[in-house]
Amino acid sequence: MYIPTMDDMLAAHERIKPYIHRTPVLTSTFMNDLTGAELFFKCENFQKAGAFKVRGASNAVFGLPDDTLAKGVATHSSGNHALSLSYAAGCRGIPCTVVMPRTAPQAKKDAVIGYGGKIVECEPSTSSREAIFAEVIKETGAEFVHPYNDPRVIAGQGTCSRELIEQVDNLDAVIAPIGGGGMISGTCLTLSNLAPNVKIYAAEPEQADDAARSFHAGHIIADDAPETVADGLKVPLKELTWHFVSNHVTDILTASEDEIVDAMKLIWKRMKIVMEPSSAVPLATILKNKNLFAGKRVGVIITGGNVDLDHLPWMKA
Amino acid sequence: MYIPTMDDMLAAHERIKPYIHRTPVLTSTFMNDLTGAELFFKCENFQKAGAFKVRGASNAVFGLPDDTLAKGVATHSSGNHALSLSYAAGCRGIPCTVVMPRTAPQAKKDAVIGYGGKIVECEPSTSSREAIFAEVIKETGAEFVHPYNDPRVIAGQGTCSRELIEQVDNLDAVIAPIGGGGMISGTCLTLSNLAPNVKIYAAEPEQADDAARSFHAGHIIADDAPETVADGLKVPLKELTWHFVSNHVTDILTASEDEIVDAMKLIWKRMKIVMEPSSAVPLATILKNKNLFAGKRVGVIITGGNVDLDHLPWMKA
Repeated sequence: MYIPTMDDMLAAHERIKPYIHRTPVLTSTFMNDLTGAELFFKCENFQKAGAFKVRGASNAVFGLPDDTLAKGVATHSSGNHALSLSYAAGCRGIPCTVVMPRTAPQAKKDAVIGYGGKIVECEPSTSSREAIFAEVIKETGAEFVHPYNDPRVIAGQGTCSRELIEQVDNLDAVIAPIGGGGMISGTCLTLSNLAPNVKIYAAEPEQADDAARSFHAGHIIADDAPETVADGLKVPLKELTWHFVSNHVTDILTASEDEIVDAMKLIWKRMKIVMEPSSAVPLATILKNKNLFAGKRVGVIITGGNVDLDHLPWMKA
Repeated sequence: MYIPTMDDMLAAHERIKPYIHRTPVLTSTFMNDLTGAELFFKCENFQKAGAFKVRGASNAVFGLPDDTLAKGVATHSSGNHALSLSYAAGCRGIPCTVVMPRTAPQAKKDAVIGYGGKIVECEPSTSSREAIFAEVIKETGAEFVHPYNDPRVIAGQGTCSRELIEQVDNLDAVIAPIGGGGMISGTCLTLSNLAPNVKIYAAEPEQADDAARSFHAGHIIADDAPETVADGLKVPLKELTWHFVSNHVTDILTASEDEIVDAMKLIWKRMKIVMEPSSAVPLATILKNKNLFAGKRVGVIITGGNVDLDHLPWMKA
């Protein structure tokens, strides 16, 4: 198992800069008053392809040797990695195949196709996804870019918190959602080297709390097909992300479905930004654990903005 | 009739700076590709109180002489001026009464109350609004701050395009929604002095096109209670805004209800920002008149972001 290094993250940042945005950091007096903390929202919902995942995907695609390009890349993903890899492959002009759950938001499927990616559908479970993906790799011979358990991807995601600490001085903590752990691992990689005093918190839906249970048990616990409105956070930790989570994370906090939807709506209403349910989990957990964050300067990573506007979680079905 | 001057606008900007944001200008490769123009979105949806109207309201409130403060301020408004005046009055610690149509979005009513304003409801027509407002003024003796036909308000709104031309070089045109004409008049005041070669377009719903008909007829035509999804744009021009519109506007373009809603949804989906139906009218008219804007650098004023998230125009009733 190759563990990505600080040099890998720095090289990734140079490699991907032409293809990504340096996203803005927003603040809100209302949110500060509400939480008692100073919150700095790193807005990856404004990122290319609408999510931070374009950082890792671009690093993998633009690091490929020329003699592998013809067969293209492939992946499985609950959504944002799929369209990020499609975007990056489109920028480099190579084929991209993605295995997506048939239940993924239509907006994400449309975006994959819009970027030139090809979709193969699976059932919304880890087992179905992995079986169908094996067939795709066999047929295409494409380079597999795992959505998070890949050193190239983690090095790419680490560029987000590098920007954040350049944009905001003296952070006490950073909090990000955790699904498979790619963003959190990149954050650990960068901050443990560049800002080792900054605490790293992960935020997870109660209904998909396998990372929290893993963290407290001391080994990976993987659930098959958990159900949560935070559709980007259903996948389990793997050995590479477990390495970073188990060594560098201070705690993993959880929030209920209602708390996640309420936090999402509050961010839309007061900050006037469109972001995904997954991105609301950090604020939901801050509101439940005000004592942990009161008086602190906290970076909050808004991971993505690709929602299906016709199926918002507070709409009647 | 006192017509506000360039000096009034400059004084307004100094006066209100502590109470407003210098809002960001966003760009979108997608929107540029779609329209063939270079669009620069001035995001007043991120403004204090969620709308540009806080500029004019703050200028009026903070310009009041001390001996008038005890009786407070009052206004009638379809929404954003109401909550902007409440916000400004709250900042100065004086009373504020607003007459609002009972059909105004609940989010706007909640915000007025949240800022400490008092609401008196009227029917959704200009005649009902003016009758009830006369009673309020008689009872309170408050200073009337008209939502747009007021030189203090127009001077305040003019600070928006002053920021825009500092933020973006060499604009060919600026386009903003038109209801009563306060934002457009402020834009005319500023640009006719500081950037007289920049063309000024106004954008209006077809279903509330009294400003467009006035513009082409050469005199004010006022409709009572037009119906449109762009709830901020139902009010008619008045003599002061007519002065600016008739002297400085290049054209007034219109869009249908469906075109407005489609443009709104497109901005939410691709730019990841929450903004009001009224703010989508400029993009809707640009998409209908691509030849006018192709190859041009165009400032697009996103006037506000106060929507009722439970009643979005593309939701089923």
